Amino acid sequence: MSDIEPIIDLSRIAIHTATTKPLAIEQAVEKYAELGFGGVSVWDDVVDAAGTGRVRALVQGAGLRVPALVRGGFFVSADPADRAASIGKNRHRIRQAAEIGAEMVVLVAGAEPGVPLESAREQATAGIAAILPEAERAGVKLAIEPLHPMYAADRCCINRIADARAVCEALASPLLGVAVDVYHVWWDPDLEREIEALGRTGRLLAFHVCDWKADTGHLLLDRGLMGDGVIDLRRIRGMVERAGFDGLIEVEIFSKHYWAMDQDRYLELIAERARTCV
Amino acid sequence: MSDIEPIIDLSRIAIHTATTKPLAIEQAVEKYAELGFGGVSVWDDVVDAAGTGRVRALVQGAGLRVPALVRGGFFVSADPADRAASIGKNRHRIRQAAEIGAEMVVLVAGAEPGVPLESAREQATAGIAAILPEAERAGVKLAIEPLHPMYAADRCCINRIADARAVCEALASPLLGVAVDVYHVWWDPDLEREIEALGRTGRLLAFHVCDWKADTGHLLLDRGLMGDGVIDLRRIRGMVERAGFDGLIEVEIFSKHYWAMDQDRYLELIAERARTCV
Repeated sequence: MSDIEPIIDLSRIAIHTATTKPLAIEQAVEKYAELGFGGVSVWDDVVDAAGTGRVRALVQGAGLRVPALVRGGFFVSADPADRAASIGKNRHRIRQAAEIGAEMVVLVAGAEPGVPLESAREQATAGIAAILPEAERAGVKLAIEPLHPMYAADRCCINRIADARAVCEALASPLLGVAVDVYHVWWDPDLEREIEALGRTGRLLAFHVCDWKADTGHLLLDRGLMGDGVIDLRRIRGMVERAGFDGLIEVEIFSKHYWAMDQDRYLELIAERARTCV
Repeated sequence: MSDIEPIIDLSRIAIHTATTKPLAIEQAVEKYAELGFGGVSVWDDVVDAAGTGRVRALVQGAGLRVPALVRGGFFVSADPADRAASIGKNRHRIRQAAEIGAEMVVLVAGAEPGVPLESAREQATAGIAAILPEAERAGVKLAIEPLHPMYAADRCCINRIADARAVCEALASPLLGVAVDVYHVWWDPDLEREIEALGRTGRLLAFHVCDWKADTGHLLLDRGLMGDGVIDLRRIRGMVERAGFDGLIEVEIFSKHYWAMDQDRYLELIAERARTCV
């Protein structure tokens, strides 16, 4: 299984700003660069607060790549006015992504308790179709991120790589692909085959890592740091690399536990675990 | 979607003893029968505590059917001695099921943080194969219950109907089938097709209902009562009935909230929701 080499060079790793949520963007990019990480994926709240010019200057100053602006999407609503508003907001996110130099916008499809899943899936597909022209104008990729089935009620109606891939194939844009986050898909019996299919069709845009704790206490804010849980990360990295992925590996962790920790120490731990567990 | 009739006759409904966990088995069967429910699925702890003779006398005295003894399985372990022990325990559960007059034993495949999912799936299949002869001797069916992917780390490595069905087809016993629990499979884009395939192959053994709350607070003990959540239960009942299912519909809810409630009032609520939401 583990015929691939450990990661030595941290320049292959990017950190999501949400991972070190307590840090201001200025501190975040400085510390990431200092430790040798190669990139930063910037969350929407950070871009909105600091402005795109400031974010661009900070990441360029630190010499970091920006795989993604995280996140757009949330196309699903029972209210057509809300759906229209989400299209506008996503177009804005795409322009912001271009302005900060991000390669892609990550899209979470959305879901709403009153909307049946089948309708939600249609709304999400229609939403993505509607923003593709803006992505083409801006030269920004769109990465559909399937979220774990436990989010199907209220966050995301696209829950498997196969379903995200089907949307890509239906819409057939070269800018459209899939973000594979181990937290959401590690359990999928079709994982290897689906990652291979993404690679073969040029749709494997992102690889997000963290871990699934066997004793997960909260559905949203108790992700594990790599090595804390059950996911065979090196094996899945093998799959994505065999599928041709050569982008930055993004560390995306929402964890009250780690947010409460000293963030310098936490970033050292991330570096250590990236080397030993990914 | 909802071209099927509401349930009027509660004799079509069975209650799991775990649903009204605070009730002793004597109270439980008396109250279920009093309200007109048609059956009771008996949990392992209840059978172990009361003994099979006593349980059989109680359910027969109350005139209740027993769709299932719940639950066997848990075949996965890194330790071969534990795996062998689980085979023995499952054979015992099958004999208990025959003794209380249960039609089936529900099987949860098992999972263990140290065991890779692929190995876990092999171990589960091997375990089921090993207990089939006992099921044939006893004339008791075995229903594999796929659990939600959020349990893949520590409870169950079989997480979709398609995967449970594949095990059935590999082992090809007429006594082997699948228990469809809405909580675990409602999100699955293949739901309708898979239920139809189960029906066509005679493998749709059980239909469990509850609800998925959009604001689920706990991964295990915060299930909703039918109508509390997002699942279109009537639509799924339509699928199982079109697939030929004519067994009892089983109410299986683990909920600290409802366990804390007066259980008489709770059973009335279950009756009301069975009529209005299923």
